[in-house]
Amino acid sequence: MSEDRRRRVALVGATGVAGQQFLVSLADHPWFELTTLAASPRSAGKRYTDAISTPGGSIQWGCEEALPEQFAGMTVQDAAKLDLDGIDMVFTAVESDAAKELEPRFAAHVPVVSTASAFRYESDVPIMIPGVNIEHSAIVKRQQRDRGWKGFVVPIPNCTTTGLAMALAPLARRFGVKQVIATSLQALSGAGRSPGVLGTDILDNVIPYIPKEEEKVQDETAKILGRLEGDEIVPLDIVVSAHCNRVQVRDGHTVCASVALGEAGSLDEVKEAFGSFGADFCDLALPSAPPALISVTEDPFRPQPKADRQLNDGMTTSIGRVREDTVLPNGIKFVLLSHNTKMGAAKGAVLTAEILVHQGLA
Amino acid sequence: MSEDRRRRVALVGATGVAGQQFLVSLADHPWFELTTLAASPRSAGKRYTDAISTPGGSIQWGCEEALPEQFAGMTVQDAAKLDLDGIDMVFTAVESDAAKELEPRFAAHVPVVSTASAFRYESDVPIMIPGVNIEHSAIVKRQQRDRGWKGFVVPIPNCTTTGLAMALAPLARRFGVKQVIATSLQALSGAGRSPGVLGTDILDNVIPYIPKEEEKVQDETAKILGRLEGDEIVPLDIVVSAHCNRVQVRDGHTVCASVALGEAGSLDEVKEAFGSFGADFCDLALPSAPPALISVTEDPFRPQPKADRQLNDGMTTSIGRVREDTVLPNGIKFVLLSHNTKMGAAKGAVLTAEILVHQGLA
Amino acid sequence: MSEDRRRRVALVGATGVAGQQFLVSLADHPWFELTTLAASPRSAGKRYTDAISTPGGSIQWGCEEALPEQFAGMTVQDAAKLDLDGIDMVFTAVESDAAKELEPRFAAHVPVVSTASAFRYESDVPIMIPGVNIEHSAIVKRQQRDRGWKGFVVPIPNCTTTGLAMALAPLARRFGVKQVIATSLQALSGAGRSPGVLGTDILDNVIPYIPKEEEKVQDETAKILGRLEGDEIVPLDIVVSAHCNRVQVRDGHTVCASVALGEAGSLDEVKEAFGSFGADFCDLALPSAPPALISVTEDPFRPQPKADRQLNDGMTTSIGRVREDTVLPNGIKFVLLSHNTKMGAAKGAVLTAEILVHQGLA
Amino acid sequence: MSEDRRRRVALVGATGVAGQQFLVSLADHPWFELTTLAASPRSAGKRYTDAISTPGGSIQWGCEEALPEQFAGMTVQDAAKLDLDGIDMVFTAVESDAAKELEPRFAAHVPVVSTASAFRYESDVPIMIPGVNIEHSAIVKRQQRDRGWKGFVVPIPNCTTTGLAMALAPLARRFGVKQVIATSLQALSGAGRSPGVLGTDILDNVIPYIPKEEEKVQDETAKILGRLEGDEIVPLDIVVSAHCNRVQVRDGHTVCASVALGEAGSLDEVKEAFGSFGADFCDLALPSAPPALISVTEDPFRPQPKADRQLNDGMTTSIGRVREDTVLPNGIKFVLLSHNTKMGAAKGAVLTAEILVHQGLA
Repeated sequence: MSEDRRRRVALVGATGVAGQQFLVSLADHPWFELTTLAASPRSAGKRYTDAISTPGGSIQWGCEEALPEQFAGMTVQDAAKLDLDGIDMVFTAVESDAAKELEPRFAAHVPVVSTASAFRYESDVPIMIPGVNIEHSAIVKRQQRDRGWKGFVVPIPNCTTTGLAMALAPLARRFGVKQVIATSLQALSGAGRSPGVLGTDILDNVIPYIPKEEEKVQDETAKILGRLEGDEIVPLDIVVSAHCNRVQVRDGHTVCASVALGEAGSLDEVKEAFGSFGADFCDLALPSAPPALISVTEDPFRPQPKADRQLNDGMTTSIGRVREDTVLPNGIKFVLLSHNTKMGAAKGAVLTAEILVHQGLA
Repeated sequence: MSEDRRRRVALVGATGVAGQQFLVSLADHPWFELTTLAASPRSAGKRYTDAISTPGGSIQWGCEEALPEQFAGMTVQDAAKLDLDGIDMVFTAVESDAAKELEPRFAAHVPVVSTASAFRYESDVPIMIPGVNIEHSAIVKRQQRDRGWKGFVVPIPNCTTTGLAMALAPLARRFGVKQVIATSLQALSGAGRSPGVLGTDILDNVIPYIPKEEEKVQDETAKILGRLEGDEIVPLDIVVSAHCNRVQVRDGHTVCASVALGEAGSLDEVKEAFGSFGADFCDLALPSAPPALISVTEDPFRPQPKADRQLNDGMTTSIGRVREDTVLPNGIKFVLLSHNTKMGAAKGAVLTAEILVHQGLA
Repeated sequence: MSEDRRRRVALVGATGVAGQQFLVSLADHPWFELTTLAASPRSAGKRYTDAISTPGGSIQWGCEEALPEQFAGMTVQDAAKLDLDGIDMVFTAVESDAAKELEPRFAAHVPVVSTASAFRYESDVPIMIPGVNIEHSAIVKRQQRDRGWKGFVVPIPNCTTTGLAMALAPLARRFGVKQVIATSLQALSGAGRSPGVLGTDILDNVIPYIPKEEEKVQDETAKILGRLEGDEIVPLDIVVSAHCNRVQVRDGHTVCASVALGEAGSLDEVKEAFGSFGADFCDLALPSAPPALISVTEDPFRPQPKADRQLNDGMTTSIGRVREDTVLPNGIKFVLLSHNTKMGAAKGAVLTAEILVHQGLA
Repeated sequence: MSEDRRRRVALVGATGVAGQQFLVSLADHPWFELTTLAASPRSAGKRYTDAISTPGGSIQWGCEEALPEQFAGMTVQDAAKLDLDGIDMVFTAVESDAAKELEPRFAAHVPVVSTASAFRYESDVPIMIPGVNIEHSAIVKRQQRDRGWKGFVVPIPNCTTTGLAMALAPLARRFGVKQVIATSLQALSGAGRSPGVLGTDILDNVIPYIPKEEEKVQDETAKILGRLEGDEIVPLDIVVSAHCNRVQVRDGHTVCASVALGEAGSLDEVKEAFGSFGADFCDLALPSAPPALISVTEDPFRPQPKADRQLNDGMTTSIGRVREDTVLPNGIKFVLLSHNTKMGAAKGAVLTAEILVHQGLA
């Protein structure tokens, strides 16, 4: 690695669930040195471990991995007053309302990679998934020009979109994709902690509705799979109909998808398209990239959240049960499993930042 | 009730999960007197409570309701040697292989209402759902004639089919139904106990495959929604594509369905069709029938297994989130919740028997 | 029932989890007519169903039983401005801080039966459990005299105390009880909803600490099992050591208890003491009383929350695995299961009120 | 490492849950080369992956870690006909009945380290826990002499005993331990898969009984904490009373323990004894040993199975909530968490074997 890939980065929203996952994703990162943690005024001025502790002294750390020691003692800054001096890039892990206000301030100076939805639907903003649409990043030039920013905002998608778009991308490229009916069985970690989902509400239960989720999946997928024409991302001409459910799983979103291909493909061709997808991207060997973007299984009982979500540290999407769909034209159907807090959130955002650095944009 | 509706009934497969649910459904039944319990040779000759106990003396009773006291002390018979003398009707709750062998023997003499799949796909056998296709029972006459039986076999469907066909029936009648893509989130009780699903396998997990389930849902639905033409059930010209999943729920199958109607209906018309379905049937006021077959909710977070499965003692299907489906022609989509061990199994079979008695067939 | 047992009652804290359970317990009550619902200013002036609904229109009803229709349309009052005119008795289901302020205002006029801990540890206040210490109610006379109240406050205990004290009472009476080491496995419903326990925190987990719970169990048990001497409740000379855990169970607190008896009893004598306890009380046949306070099982795998919590609508404590404890002097040990939101909360409070009416105190 | 620590080992019972965990524990082991896999005749002659697959081709692999590739293609031998030629040591992971028959055959020739209970209670057999009682291994000399074996059998304890004895050992050494009342909340993985615990039985439930478990905990603890006198292990003069429960947790046994110390110790002294325990043992830096045997936490909500079981790959016992117990003389109480399938099973057995090699016994 050449020295010029080193960046000093700040993390805004460092105390929340997504922020904690960024800490894990950035620990010992070969390019990115996390020098600044920021959060709401309530946390400002506190040691990081104190900022995430209850009054009774219980540390609210939600990741499976331990809190990286190098961050435990850092002092949390007030995000609203963040000094970007010496900062090369910002990761944001805040709610949409806060993002709408904070991200433009940061983007005026430096690149911002965001997990928030605030700017996803703006025409000069790409929604990026590593290996799927990395060419979309080119429109940040227009974003900088039109908004007068030195930096830019690049959001990643909703975590359910990530897995679905990852599975559709190889199909879109090889066969075309016209229609999708997708039913998700989503993990609890996707709901965060405020308010999150109560144990008594999900025990022995399914909650068949997640506010705004279906719209996000439907809208983001078309944009992500769209093509770049000059300064524009032209959405793919695709119709997506989603049913989103919450189930009693900690991590890992399962999606059952029925897909109408543009032209017919045999099941073997479809599996081959899945399995070979993204090889060029993986060959770049970016620090957070997995050896393969998609893993195809022939085990009829797989993928399962518990068994497959950790594949390649949660950066590979697992697909199984590939079979014909009898309803849709050129129809196929399958089950996919994507780790919603790894590729679908913080570590996916870090990999996105690595792409931007690799592309010379950040 | 006139005296002539009283029947003496036998239950075969009385010790299993489904059999236990029959005991609950038949306790204090106004028409059916359960006089005989039968099971495998291993249980034969034992008191019922001993037959369902472990060697250590722990009673393996799986229903939420208590074991009805009147059955606790009955002696279990050997199903293979069952004496039908004095028996008017038989309920069977055995595996398909056993049903294939036993049910013809019983049907030679008396009506058999079965939860097994053994005879579901024979052309002279109806698959019955109360309130949905009760006219199909007429073909038992052909069954008796062709097979030389004094009785007959009437199976109920797979428990996942029950909820789906119940929801499709009013749509088929009012608008026509052409295509269905359905994803189920099925409860653990549907898997029974041998082998059942291990706690360590379903904890924090989804299992996206249930052997043979999708085929059953696809095939049975067309037959159930078919029309009787003379001696034939002509299946509905419908294509059903199913994704079947096991989730960590005790009872109650949730299904997310996208449906192409034959002709367009507004969401209000669709809801009205659901809500008014089966009023004639319910007016019969059969002992196990609910006041309504379908309940429609406007609460976007419903139906949920825990909150809605017990509605009318598990005999009413709950439907919510009725909205347009953008993929399918004249498309609508919704979520349904059906109690798999009540309407979907034993109590549904008892209600089916009530229909047959009401129709003068049993 | 004589006419003079009819009371018009108000429920304060009607919208919370415990309040909802009161509605179920008071529906169609033969003595108590619930005429007034009160809650915080946020709910005041709303229809009850609106007061418990989210902005999106989802009714947050947490009981297994349906919302009794007669209460659905009642207008919720502001608890702080509650007009007691025409009210004979008040049930409170509010947090301790609110109880400290509100209950004296109500008690100045009418009897208050409370689920809150605010007054439990005052010397002129009994902590009552139906069938266990109903004679303690006599000290409300002193409470009225000393505080100048026309009414009084009678709290029920913490829900974990209820089950333990119920099990210890027959032992204390027959053998004496000197020491108890008790480990609880408590249900999620005991934590309420604000903040409650997040699904992601309890899935695949045990939380071995519930703030202030162990102290409550230890202190309340001695008082409840104490004897009335004149105007004083003299606590039982007992030492209780508690370990309180939260487990992934919806309703029903399990407690593993090791007990040092005052004098030795055989296991049969102990079981007999359990099984026969409270017969006199049950003979009163109060409307909410179960036919037996304690049920003893010989099944080594019982009691279990799922199988046993609903016994007699949650009003009977189940005890099993009665055996010798080798550590404590005259030691026995056993497992008990008590329904924390039935006998341990609202319905236990309603039964307490029935006792007070029966005793002529309310 | 000197060359003479290299051993060629066989694993008997390779296909079961415990056997699979041995594969993970032995992958890339610096000393032990796993050259032979053996199981029941049903698996004999099959490739390992085929031996653990269902007829439908689904691999039944139960570990969180992936199946180590080097073992996937090995041919499984028939355990009853195992050829020990070239084998230096055997690990057994079979049921007690099979162990009773097989282990003596193997022990006639080579050392056997066993997870089975078959020989645990023989007077010439130690029950070993790494770092707790490694000096007990000396009695294998007597075992060899009396039984005429060239090898020997060394079992590890029941997985619940492991955590409890680990926590008691530093107390016994420093203060003495007289009495223990311990309540376990045990994980599902401890029940294995045949029959295991059904999902429908443990969902929303606690099962307060595990056959034979309490006796094992009580008996094994005294022997493990005993002292070696010549050729005898003299059990510690301790009384243990156990309540064993199954809860809905995948891995990690939680135990709430109240302990009477021989002489009083302050809470700080107790914590210091826990935290410093086993430093000498850990200094040996055996391949599977953790950096510390016990970790003490001040977080009142810890230890928790989900958060703490993976500490040092499951080889460190976590202890928290150390406080006084008011019932027992010199009483303290605390919560411990031990990984039942790591230190409590396969990896604990591998570490035990490392000790035996280090001691020159194997």
